[in-house]
Amino acid sequence: MKKVINNPELVVEELLEGMVYAYPKYVEKLENANVLVRKVKKTDKVSLISGGGSGHEPSHGGFVGKGMLDGAVAGAVFTSPTPDQVYEAIKAVATDAGVLLVIKNYTGDVMNFDMAKEMAEMEGIKVESVIVDDDVAVQNSTWTIGRRGIAGTVFVHKIAGAKAETGANLEEVKSAALKVIANVRSMGMALTPCIVPAAGKPNFTLAENEMEVGMGIHGEPGTHREELKAADEIVSHLMGRILEDMPLDENNEVAIMINGLGATPLMELFIINRKVNKILEEKGVNVYKTLVGEYMTSIEMAGFSISILKLDEELKELLDASADTPAFKQF
Amino acid sequence: MKKVINNPELVVEELLEGMVYAYPKYVEKLENANVLVRKVKKTDKVSLISGGGSGHEPSHGGFVGKGMLDGAVAGAVFTSPTPDQVYEAIKAVATDAGVLLVIKNYTGDVMNFDMAKEMAEMEGIKVESVIVDDDVAVQNSTWTIGRRGIAGTVFVHKIAGAKAETGANLEEVKSAALKVIANVRSMGMALTPCIVPAAGKPNFTLAENEMEVGMGIHGEPGTHREELKAADEIVSHLMGRILEDMPLDENNEVAIMINGLGATPLMELFIINRKVNKILEEKGVNVYKTLVGEYMTSIEMAGFSISILKLDEELKELLDASADTPAFKQF
Repeated sequence: MKKVINNPELVVEELLEGMVYAYPKYVEKLENANVLVRKVKKTDKVSLISGGGSGHEPSHGGFVGKGMLDGAVAGAVFTSPTPDQVYEAIKAVATDAGVLLVIKNYTGDVMNFDMAKEMAEMEGIKVESVIVDDDVAVQNSTWTIGRRGIAGTVFVHKIAGAKAETGANLEEVKSAALKVIANVRSMGMALTPCIVPAAGKPNFTLAENEMEVGMGIHGEPGTHREELKAADEIVSHLMGRILEDMPLDENNEVAIMINGLGATPLMELFIINRKVNKILEEKGVNVYKTLVGEYMTSIEMAGFSISILKLDEELKELLDASADTPAFKQF
Repeated sequence: MKKVINNPELVVEELLEGMVYAYPKYVEKLENANVLVRKVKKTDKVSLISGGGSGHEPSHGGFVGKGMLDGAVAGAVFTSPTPDQVYEAIKAVATDAGVLLVIKNYTGDVMNFDMAKEMAEMEGIKVESVIVDDDVAVQNSTWTIGRRGIAGTVFVHKIAGAKAETGANLEEVKSAALKVIANVRSMGMALTPCIVPAAGKPNFTLAENEMEVGMGIHGEPGTHREELKAADEIVSHLMGRILEDMPLDENNEVAIMINGLGATPLMELFIINRKVNKILEEKGVNVYKTLVGEYMTSIEMAGFSISILKLDEELKELLDASADTPAFKQF
């Protein structure tokens, strides 16, 4: 296991400590839980909480800050946070306006966030939740009923976060989140597996000239394995699946996210972005904004995902709103 | 060779095209050369140009924008740009106030940037240059006389870029750059080699439980190889070397950059940052700003470098100045 870590059992604690050291003006860690919250808390606006297993950095702690999240719950690596952890996060950031939970669609996450929601509601806190299921690859998977939630979730953080900053009420912020979820589609591929530190061995194996198409961000099986193809061919396949699910034409504007899974260099992500743009150009689709980088990783997996968000005027305005977080800045 | 690319001979052209697609408001590519320049050019302030071989993305094109670079010259992968390329960059962004070239210390880069400088001077363009040599690992290396220039170069872009935006003259901008160079030290390590696409095979080999300490960003040999250690132990060694070269105590303030080389996940970079902070804390050194992420990569090499910049009031102010580039935003 070639990793620069100390104790495999302490990676989450140590990485959170390292994040707080890096961004003391943005985040602080709750004393009693692996939860990062904003240093300067909201007083009367809707708060947003997301999270899940660790190993997806900068998700989710990197998006805690003005215009995005108020709290990020960090489970063990690739493991759902406990209901208690989520409950502590809710209590720490709740305002009278309420809290929106942004959950990626994994059975454990949905169950534990829901239990925390019930616990908080019993304390009189207003809580709503949305479930992101942007991955068009497979209908059900190892840890999911329905589609999985992957990198498109970051668009939910950005847009619902911006809506909350406007002073919108809980129903309005939830509506903005649901609009993103209805209009975002993603699909990825992997060249290599990754290693959960405590497990110490790869979560799957791939031959030297093989790729897994449509795998999940925890290494869940995708649609198939095949010989590694040229970048343009891989992108054409993934975009084909996305556009089959959400047809686009010259009347549409979109935002693109080319998301690296951890070990894929920017060089490749830009080559991928080139082909995504060429495909959209051919269809006359206008690309309004593009994000290229690491947003929702799978530890050190080599591979990437493409997310396409179909925009309307409201989504464009909220996407453009300023945000100031460690991993996403826009002014 | 497990890469998501098309033709190995076209990676630079295609990645630059992908960058322009991603950041059309920031950069455009010169028609006649692999050079990215600002979309909105300076009219009367000193312009900054940097560059080198490709494979270090987001360096250097990702730092083209307000408050940092005006032009980025992209050589073939791990290969110095030609004098002609640099000359085209100079001509494209030169103002009457002149141009500063920020060169990483590699023999080929120094020679070719210098030739371009002479060509431009013959056209009556004012050009100055600085050479960054922040890597404390080894004195001479495969392609270097003296110390190598690595990730600390990004601090030069940021600070000299901010100085240029103030309207300072060429000598003043050069002085700011030299001040950074005099006060920044870096050192790195690698867990894996990387593959130059056109070569198709790793540039060196490491056993499964081995690391290379102090290697360069093109895989040049470092100080030694040894068994992979725990993160804290590795960081202690690298910081020891840096602090031996530039002692720090409770009277000092610093900026930190924990730079991923391409395949090292943020999880590990934050664990590394934690230990860097603990070492500085113990010495009473105040950490003024921290950058964690990929700034100067080596394609898909696994590993990282630590850069420490000793600050004074001028450097703090220039480091804090706003910057708006694809890969570095601060407002």
